[in-house]
Amino acid sequence: MNSSEDTIAAIATPPGQAGIAVVRISGPDALNIGDKLFKARSGPVSACAGGSFLYGHLADPAGKDGGDLDEAIALIYRAPHSYTREDVLELQCHGGRQSAGRTLRAVLQCGARIADPGEFTRRAFLNGRIDLVQAEAVADLISARTERAARVAVEQLEGRLSSSLADVYDVLLSLAADVEGSLDLDDDEMERELPADWAQRLEVVRGNLQALLSTWGEGHLVRDGALVVICGRPNTGKSSLMNALLGKPRAIVAPEPGTTRDTIEEEMILEGIPVRLVDTAGVRKTDSAIEGEGVRRALDLLAKADLVLHVVDTSVPADTSYTCLDEGLSKTRRIAVLNKSDLPQHIAAEAVVNVSTVTCCALKGDGVESLRKEMAMCLGVSENREPHAVISERHRQLVEKALVELGLAAGSFDGNQDLVLSAIHLKAAAEEIGKILGRSYTDDVLDSVFSRFCVGK
Amino acid sequence: MNSSEDTIAAIATPPGQAGIAVVRISGPDALNIGDKLFKARSGPVSACAGGSFLYGHLADPAGKDGGDLDEAIALIYRAPHSYTREDVLELQCHGGRQSAGRTLRAVLQCGARIADPGEFTRRAFLNGRIDLVQAEAVADLISARTERAARVAVEQLEGRLSSSLADVYDVLLSLAADVEGSLDLDDDEMERELPADWAQRLEVVRGNLQALLSTWGEGHLVRDGALVVICGRPNTGKSSLMNALLGKPRAIVAPEPGTTRDTIEEEMILEGIPVRLVDTAGVRKTDSAIEGEGVRRALDLLAKADLVLHVVDTSVPADTSYTCLDEGLSKTRRIAVLNKSDLPQHIAAEAVVNVSTVTCCALKGDGVESLRKEMAMCLGVSENREPHAVISERHRQLVEKALVELGLAAGSFDGNQDLVLSAIHLKAAAEEIGKILGRSYTDDVLDSVFSRFCVGK
Repeated sequence: MNSSEDTIAAIATPPGQAGIAVVRISGPDALNIGDKLFKARSGPVSACAGGSFLYGHLADPAGKDGGDLDEAIALIYRAPHSYTREDVLELQCHGGRQSAGRTLRAVLQCGARIADPGEFTRRAFLNGRIDLVQAEAVADLISARTERAARVAVEQLEGRLSSSLADVYDVLLSLAADVEGSLDLDDDEMERELPADWAQRLEVVRGNLQALLSTWGEGHLVRDGALVVICGRPNTGKSSLMNALLGKPRAIVAPEPGTTRDTIEEEMILEGIPVRLVDTAGVRKTDSAIEGEGVRRALDLLAKADLVLHVVDTSVPADTSYTCLDEGLSKTRRIAVLNKSDLPQHIAAEAVVNVSTVTCCALKGDGVESLRKEMAMCLGVSENREPHAVISERHRQLVEKALVELGLAAGSFDGNQDLVLSAIHLKAAAEEIGKILGRSYTDDVLDSVFSRFCVGK
Repeated sequence: MNSSEDTIAAIATPPGQAGIAVVRISGPDALNIGDKLFKARSGPVSACAGGSFLYGHLADPAGKDGGDLDEAIALIYRAPHSYTREDVLELQCHGGRQSAGRTLRAVLQCGARIADPGEFTRRAFLNGRIDLVQAEAVADLISARTERAARVAVEQLEGRLSSSLADVYDVLLSLAADVEGSLDLDDDEMERELPADWAQRLEVVRGNLQALLSTWGEGHLVRDGALVVICGRPNTGKSSLMNALLGKPRAIVAPEPGTTRDTIEEEMILEGIPVRLVDTAGVRKTDSAIEGEGVRRALDLLAKADLVLHVVDTSVPADTSYTCLDEGLSKTRRIAVLNKSDLPQHIAAEAVVNVSTVTCCALKGDGVESLRKEMAMCLGVSENREPHAVISERHRQLVEKALVELGLAAGSFDGNQDLVLSAIHLKAAAEEIGKILGRSYTDDVLDSVFSRFCVGK
């Protein structure tokens, strides 16, 4: 078990050839290690004020003639004014394969231990500098694949989601306290009506949590990206549609065997959302075992899809062999893409019911912009929307638990008016929200949150 | 043409997911750009002392509601106390795909231009903070593939090679001045003997330059690595030898077709030197055109090799079909590896002349340590040797030119005693040494030196 009394160290920059690499050291011994390793004309690291940096040389602890490991800059942070709220020393040395590794080894030789993934941020959380929602935002920001994901993460890092949740938490605890307080009153008073604002306050909180819950979809798309599956019969123009959406020809666009290679996949950005665009390459009802496997995989993809683009060639009469595909589609958000609008039409757009349609000619690019807009609408994303707090899967699960508790609390207000039970459910709801913020936590929760961090953060 | 009056900016850390990324800005406008972008509670960047850093937020210049790009740390360097001797601002933001890119874009929007590769170091050189030899060491350090290469680069960065060269330069100029001074004396005095110490001083310098020249081999090996080629007949145990040297089984060790795949290549480290170990996989004299191509490639490799390991199976009688290979070998440093020492012997080690031999059983690993030692000796490298100034190919060419000039200067001392000519050659030699240090340079030379830098350094 790693102790938080240890002084930890890690390389905080990615591997690769570049100008700068940074080795970060945090803990009670950080500045002493600096004194051992870092030689500056202006004196020892431990004599420096926090918020200052020094130019100097890293002495090689194994060097015979006082040889240096590198030139370096040492940044001195003094507790609590640091990322971890501990004493922190950052050694900026040259980039490349060797310098950071040599510097880290020397730091470890001087008594630090190597940091676990996310351990610096874990300490920032444990020492109260940030809450768990903000800690998660750090990992979101580092792994952000789009500008938009970065904006959402920064906003979360700066506390907008945290403060919404903290408000809910406070209201729930104060309401629970009011309910509990009323239990101490005598029986006469107990017979009175419940204060009118209790149910109202509860409803406001439920509304706020429902609103937060509705941001999960966007949060999921921004963090994990959207899975958009293109399906349809062979030769309806799916590959052309893929090219048109990607805005570039794929290296090889050729009729796919379908039974052997089941999907073609590319990444695109739609309104700031990373999109995995997958072409299922010609699914049809079949009795062949091999093609049946292809169909099974396509149906799997359709079940996971955030959006399906169902490509229909309107220049040929409708085909009735689509049953199995339609079954898969019925449960998923989808757009019917009526392709080959430039050819004589045999299927009218009006004939397609229960699903939004976009008419296009993928080969020429006509209608593709409309399709992108329709896709964004179906996915519920818009680049122009200001970033706002969006919750993650972990948050969603806890918000849903809190809402269940609030439903029970509201029920006991309305029904038997068992105020003891109401108070218990209100406090249980607050507890779930507190878990989101990390006001209560277990090591398992922290391990799971911080395991997705890189080392050095 | 990029002006050095510009304020330049670049991401100075490698791409990839990590805790920290750094955007570096250098030039007259660096701190003003900081004022525009960076918001700290403690006030504007331009009000801060050099050598201090601030915690704050990067404002999004395109943000509508004052949204932030990221949290960041800003390091303030004031001219001339910076890497470039200009005002420098370093913005440390979160790592990952997005943050550094967003920060750099914002910096460019505020008026900086993107830096060329090596442009920060070029400015450090042009502003006199380091000489050209030290600037080259920066690139050497960043691209160092081994600990040893890093040590050599740091030593060069700290000026040991520069000061050797500067000594030579000074001696040459002072000697040239003495010689020129004597030209002003009247004829009577001119008839006298040359001062005895002139020739002696010249010889000392020549000795120093010769000594420097002899470090080129090590410098070449440390920087570029050594090419070690294993050759020999099929089934002499070359692949086993390769595995034994690598200390690990290669993924696939199988008899090679030879005509289709001409070489197998792996990297190993020998006494701190990166070694490209290439197996030529069975070269033999042949009349076949296809196999002839394989032989031609093998001979090419042998010609380039820093060392050849010629594997001989001593358990079978000597084969006379080696003529073409032997021709290629005659010009190269080589070791005869007498393999299969565990089997009954048909070739005695004593029969191999004019080349060092190592007896081994590659399959069992016997004798491989001796081979490694012999290889290190033949390559002239030893891990235990303290690092010292070693010259590069650019340096070698200029040192050789200087030595030619010194030869001519010495000749005119000894022979016709044309002192005008002596002084010219002495100054020409000094000029060549000055080019190494960058005391005189052309844009072409700088372009060539700095083109191998990464952006951001």
